[in-house]
Amino acid sequence: MHRTHVKVLEDVLDANGTIAAANRDDFERAGVTVVNLMGAPGAGKTTLLEQSLRQLAGVRVGVLEGDVASTLDADRIAHLHVPVVQIDTDPGFGGECHLDANMVRSALPSLPLAELDLLVIENVGNLVCPAEFRVGEHHRVMVSSVAEGEDKPLKYPLMFRACELVIVNKVDLLPHLDFDLGRYLRNLDAVHPGVERLLVSAKTGEGVDAWRDWLVRAAARDAVPA
Amino acid sequence: MHRTHVKVLEDVLDANGTIAAANRDDFERAGVTVVNLMGAPGAGKTTLLEQSLRQLAGVRVGVLEGDVASTLDADRIAHLHVPVVQIDTDPGFGGECHLDANMVRSALPSLPLAELDLLVIENVGNLVCPAEFRVGEHHRVMVSSVAEGEDKPLKYPLMFRACELVIVNKVDLLPHLDFDLGRYLRNLDAVHPGVERLLVSAKTGEGVDAWRDWLVRAAARDAVPA
Repeated sequence: MHRTHVKVLEDVLDANGTIAAANRDDFERAGVTVVNLMGAPGAGKTTLLEQSLRQLAGVRVGVLEGDVASTLDADRIAHLHVPVVQIDTDPGFGGECHLDANMVRSALPSLPLAELDLLVIENVGNLVCPAEFRVGEHHRVMVSSVAEGEDKPLKYPLMFRACELVIVNKVDLLPHLDFDLGRYLRNLDAVHPGVERLLVSAKTGEGVDAWRDWLVRAAARDAVPA
Repeated sequence: MHRTHVKVLEDVLDANGTIAAANRDDFERAGVTVVNLMGAPGAGKTTLLEQSLRQLAGVRVGVLEGDVASTLDADRIAHLHVPVVQIDTDPGFGGECHLDANMVRSALPSLPLAELDLLVIENVGNLVCPAEFRVGEHHRVMVSSVAEGEDKPLKYPLMFRACELVIVNKVDLLPHLDFDLGRYLRNLDAVHPGVERLLVSAKTGEGVDAWRDWLVRAAARDAVPA
């Protein structure tokens, strides 16, 4: 790596941390719990979110959608009559591959924070950079699809270490894949020993109730009423 | 986006273009065709590469593996007795999410370029930044798994536009997915009209011969004997 590039990254991460702390203050003042939902493209983040939002009666949820292009995901969430704001990360090149604290900050005025218990931020599909940029969230959660293979924890360790919950999605495909679940879980424990995990299928609904319960508990535990 | 960040990106891309051109000159002097193979994490790039390398008799192939962490992929390729060099993109943070021209340049002395007809560079699994950084390649190819969903061309358009060939992988899973292949191909044509595509299953071998033939043709067409 070029030294200049590393220095620039350090400065960027420094500034990001300052803005993330300001976001966090705003979230706590409003009494809203914030979850940063990450994962590879096509891991099933949006489908899982749709499924759990349908079951989240009693919790006032908002969603922030980060995407390089298109409003497809935001449109899907809006369909569920949930407040949703889209952050378009395309600054003129191919687009930013992650959300940063400043992008999230720019979206805050568009969100009815005071009326929410829970805000889910769906990050850009990527297993590298989103783990490097805090956005002011309380919890980092990732969705990992079994179709991606058993080796992913070893190949993208920072992401698997950064999260406190790993949702292992698309388990309905297990009979059709050469995927050794035991080996995957051993790889997961090798990079993040004992991290909480949920086996789910956003398609069949298997395990989605456990994820919904996790969200309900997180919202209740972190809420700091204004 | 912060203006400073955009300016830094412009400078980085500028320098990258200069180094990519130098790499390209070296490749052409050595008479080696270079393919930059991209795709999301778990799309099946390495498995597909393993399958096609086994069938590439008569073509002298080398591989450059870009990974954030672990030598898992490089080890798999080395097993096939193919010259392989690993580029570890981790500079101390969570790792770079793409290869750039300078990383590739740093690996060139470790490759027996003069003894190769074809060099395949397997990029970091990511649908955003790898499309922004040329590394001196002749061809850009992406692997897109049907397990990732039909909407991916619309959500990551630069990647799908940057490539001249899209390998639609894991078609063996089609009976088990809610995936409308017709809709996916229409989305693909919407962002890159008429782009060449191959339907393959690295698992069953379906279509892998067409990909091997593509590589053989590319190697023959571009080779500039020293």
